[in-house]
Amino acid sequence: MAQNIYDQAEFFAAYSQLGRSLAGLDGAAEWPALQAMLPEMDGLDVVDLGCGFGWFCRWARENGAARVLGLDLSEKMLARARSGTSDAAITYEVADLQHLALQEGGFDLAYSSLAFHYVEDASRLYAQIHRALRPGGRLVFSTEHPIYMAPTSPGWASGVDGRRIWPLNRYLVEGPRTTDWLAPGVVKHHRTLGTTLNALIAAGFRVTHVEEFCPTLDQIAAQPALAEEVERPMFLLVSAVRG
Amino acid sequence: MAQNIYDQAEFFAAYSQLGRSLAGLDGAAEWPALQAMLPEMDGLDVVDLGCGFGWFCRWARENGAARVLGLDLSEKMLARARSGTSDAAITYEVADLQHLALQEGGFDLAYSSLAFHYVEDASRLYAQIHRALRPGGRLVFSTEHPIYMAPTSPGWASGVDGRRIWPLNRYLVEGPRTTDWLAPGVVKHHRTLGTTLNALIAAGFRVTHVEEFCPTLDQIAAQPALAEEVERPMFLLVSAVRG
Repeated sequence: MAQNIYDQAEFFAAYSQLGRSLAGLDGAAEWPALQAMLPEMDGLDVVDLGCGFGWFCRWARENGAARVLGLDLSEKMLARARSGTSDAAITYEVADLQHLALQEGGFDLAYSSLAFHYVEDASRLYAQIHRALRPGGRLVFSTEHPIYMAPTSPGWASGVDGRRIWPLNRYLVEGPRTTDWLAPGVVKHHRTLGTTLNALIAAGFRVTHVEEFCPTLDQIAAQPALAEEVERPMFLLVSAVRG
Repeated sequence: MAQNIYDQAEFFAAYSQLGRSLAGLDGAAEWPALQAMLPEMDGLDVVDLGCGFGWFCRWARENGAARVLGLDLSEKMLARARSGTSDAAITYEVADLQHLALQEGGFDLAYSSLAFHYVEDASRLYAQIHRALRPGGRLVFSTEHPIYMAPTSPGWASGVDGRRIWPLNRYLVEGPRTTDWLAPGVVKHHRTLGTTLNALIAAGFRVTHVEEFCPTLDQIAAQPALAEEVERPMFLLVSAVRG
């Protein structure tokens, strides 16, 4: 089973205070870019892999999705998600993405926000998603960017020219990365961008868009701390179609 | 016109002494990985974009290509290439990839090694290549990896934990990068990996393989200096098919 860091009290408490937890989709700087990669929701059967508090599930229904299944490893997250809606077309279930088993051909859209980097075997995950999508169905997801995840000391530093630098190393050494984020000992699984794309292609997907998230000038003006994000990408956004 | 650094005497003299210039394809660590992405050469019409001394053009013919067109901006490179073969099925011509105009539907394979990062308008280039390929034709190329190209001070440094790091910054700021490589003032054009892939997709290509070059253990054993290459990718290798 995958590490269930979200159900640890310390982590859950800290996570609940993040902008993206309090303000929902609009609290995530990368949401507008991810939203632009989504198809029209009208009439779609949608699965959200790592749904958290259910912000996206509710958004999908508000925008016309026929049915939304929200999956998460965390009982605490799901309890909060369930308390946020009485919509009978939204279902929340406990699921471990590492051992995912979805209804074959049951969905038009698989969506995931910042969950796949917790999954060790991405090839198995992509194959399961491919099988669960109808022909022409889409997978749209965000994940931590491998540049962000790779380093032995992932934090800003100063370069020889005095400029802010991201101390990249171990980029081509794939495998687990243990960091202290909200709680100590959070395990993520580092894969190169090439590995991610090749695994999607091997699973039968056609890659249609690859975005290394960069805040817009408007976003930086509204939230100056985002300026440093231009130095290295924190998020990778991918759209792929089942052929 | 693109900068023609290769025809500057100082650059050309230094370039001629590189392992990949002296030993040909086998002098390039990434060649086995790039070769594995190539189709069978039998009967193919091939264009090599930035052919340099013509090593790949000759290899393609030796492996069964029907006809090979080698293009390069540098007269000096082409003179050396022409002197290396008497094969009438290989043609060498001066061409600026920034203003490329190829015969429509004239080729089965477009190949390029470490030339595209000198081209400012990659979208125009990919559209020209797409037009020049027959349906089902392939584009296989290597380019400097954007991680390698982006930084303001692109050289190894030491991190807070004492480990070797690559001081990444300006990754999401696309545009020219001027470096001193073999000669001062070499201009390359930095694009994110996402931009490169999206431009290929927009031109009508289906991306089939993306590889961020990593030396094999055998290569590192034979050439220990390659060990540092696992810290950050130097080369990006891409294969795409005209749909």
